[in-house]
Amino acid sequence: MPAEAPVTVFAGPLRDFCREVFVHLGVPEEDAAITADVLVAADLRGIDSHGVARLKRYVDGIRDGVMRTRPNTRVVVETPATITLDADGGLGQPVSARAMRKAMEKARTVGAGFASVRNSNHYGIAGYYAMMALEEDMIGVSTTNSDALVVPTFSRNALLGTNPIAVAVPAGRSPAFVLDMATSTVPRGKLEVYDRLGKPMPHGWATDETGASTTDATRVLKNLTMRANGGLLPLGGEGELLSGHKGYGLALLVDILSGVLSGSAYANLTYPKGPDGAPLPANIGHFFGAFRIDAFRPPDEFRRDMDDLLDRLRNADKAAGATRIYIHGEKEFETAARREVEGIPLHPRVAASLREIGGSCGVQPPF
Amino acid sequence: MPAEAPVTVFAGPLRDFCREVFVHLGVPEEDAAITADVLVAADLRGIDSHGVARLKRYVDGIRDGVMRTRPNTRVVVETPATITLDADGGLGQPVSARAMRKAMEKARTVGAGFASVRNSNHYGIAGYYAMMALEEDMIGVSTTNSDALVVPTFSRNALLGTNPIAVAVPAGRSPAFVLDMATSTVPRGKLEVYDRLGKPMPHGWATDETGASTTDATRVLKNLTMRANGGLLPLGGEGELLSGHKGYGLALLVDILSGVLSGSAYANLTYPKGPDGAPLPANIGHFFGAFRIDAFRPPDEFRRDMDDLLDRLRNADKAAGATRIYIHGEKEFETAARREVEGIPLHPRVAASLREIGGSCGVQPPF
Repeated sequence: MPAEAPVTVFAGPLRDFCREVFVHLGVPEEDAAITADVLVAADLRGIDSHGVARLKRYVDGIRDGVMRTRPNTRVVVETPATITLDADGGLGQPVSARAMRKAMEKARTVGAGFASVRNSNHYGIAGYYAMMALEEDMIGVSTTNSDALVVPTFSRNALLGTNPIAVAVPAGRSPAFVLDMATSTVPRGKLEVYDRLGKPMPHGWATDETGASTTDATRVLKNLTMRANGGLLPLGGEGELLSGHKGYGLALLVDILSGVLSGSAYANLTYPKGPDGAPLPANIGHFFGAFRIDAFRPPDEFRRDMDDLLDRLRNADKAAGATRIYIHGEKEFETAARREVEGIPLHPRVAASLREIGGSCGVQPPF
Repeated sequence: MPAEAPVTVFAGPLRDFCREVFVHLGVPEEDAAITADVLVAADLRGIDSHGVARLKRYVDGIRDGVMRTRPNTRVVVETPATITLDADGGLGQPVSARAMRKAMEKARTVGAGFASVRNSNHYGIAGYYAMMALEEDMIGVSTTNSDALVVPTFSRNALLGTNPIAVAVPAGRSPAFVLDMATSTVPRGKLEVYDRLGKPMPHGWATDETGASTTDATRVLKNLTMRANGGLLPLGGEGELLSGHKGYGLALLVDILSGVLSGSAYANLTYPKGPDGAPLPANIGHFFGAFRIDAFRPPDEFRRDMDDLLDRLRNADKAAGATRIYIHGEKEFETAARREVEGIPLHPRVAASLREIGGSCGVQPPF
């Protein structure tokens, strides 16, 4: 096959492929289905960096023992509105979907519910779990901590993750509001694009090893890989002039809610290794929440006002040169609708990686 | 008295003065005490823009009938974990303190609690209510919508407030983490400083009437006053290059939680007027939350990890030219400790305004 041929694949067969790979690796059928669904949901929504392009990391994680296929998940603490789960080093997706269901169950009973997860692994796109709440007319919340890539304001050490915050809110005739944002100005993937193009990136995205904002993406990526100093900047950029301390505060808040409140690792989360040098589970933490709309006001009134609010924003006067005002999640809903029909375009390198994984697991890729 | 003499006053007498002014205007003793405490807390913490400098707005609001002194607050909806209150156009502070107490009461019972308030007025600093949770070893949350000053990404209309998010988290020997941030890059007050100095402000703070980023603070303030186009930019600045859409998303989230979920006004919140031209209550909405730490994990473990996390940040390597890494709330705790001992410095214009208010109410100012 030509190395640069674009590959288009439909969501269903891609999901089946991922599920079969996980099952081959020893993941129970239901957990495999959830993990596959979370990955392909990212591709459908156009968040390609978090989709099947990452399948290899999960396959490697399972093979290295970093991600356990049959963890013994247990309840640490439980109250009517809250629960903390220990994921026992399992895959992040299945325990996260279950934790979110628990939060929703509690919201059904007492009005609002929260689930905290310790000792987990990467859970994919934060928005997936927040959006689960939409099925039951609830507001959903999801946060996770992640690899240390982001420098706190005035520091040169990458101590915080890109620590995303996702909140999904149902509307009436309008698509839901789905905020799913890293608390850094940009994700690492954006730097990789500038690195590949050899282009200077904008100031405010990342710092060099002295802690000063830089336009040299290649240098920042090299520093991050070598765990030298510097890293991504929090939302708001360098220092306090454009309020980088606010992005830093949001990243820290996510580390507290996901890492400290659950009893997971926090600040300077890296891939730990055992005494024999073998990698250990990442001990990532997550936080989930659900609010029942009718625990605050009648849902029909809420939906009417949501539609009106979102319409007012969409129909507002555009800034000079702008043609459209977006609601958060809108671009992703449109991409998903298109990709459901037209298929998901896979980068040739991603397709090649899936072929390799398929080969090693005896699972035929759907292309 | 010389117009430019600085005036220093202690918190206690300043609180008494404000309380007596409110009582004179017909506010019940307890409500007056809460409102005075919230105002002076802002001055103590160094957030002078939200302290007694605003007393006149409240006095005028009460005299104009915009803020009712003896509102009939009622419960709209209640579940074990949630409550929605209608503030009946009363002062924002007393109903907010009570709503936060309700959220904490619910957290005591079921693990987490939330209170939503509609038909309210300005509530002062968001952090005050979030910090109430610290007294009971809980995490506190507080958000409010506010006057439309902020332009959504790609719009030239100021449709959203500076919509603050406050979260307070207890620690052990370390002071608490207290994030209290407007979701705009900067508050209007920052533009007023540049306007007074006649200095160009940084790009990324505000847009002109065409919707383009501008350095002309005077022009932006004039446009905001005249309700022409343009306004403050959301955190992340203009467009999507530095992720201004994330700040826009946070501002919109706060409008949803505070305005839509409670059943208050939202998007383009302005001071409404009745058919006779008389101002009406602002119909501002708030949202409060409380999480019991021990509903997630043993509090001693939590406090130990919080101290460790905050220490790791404080002790991280500094960026070139930086001397200190701050934890959110730290500057304010230090200012409060100093001002408790040395007194609160009042700008001569603020002191003059308090003298005038005192004169009109027959209350002697403490200076």
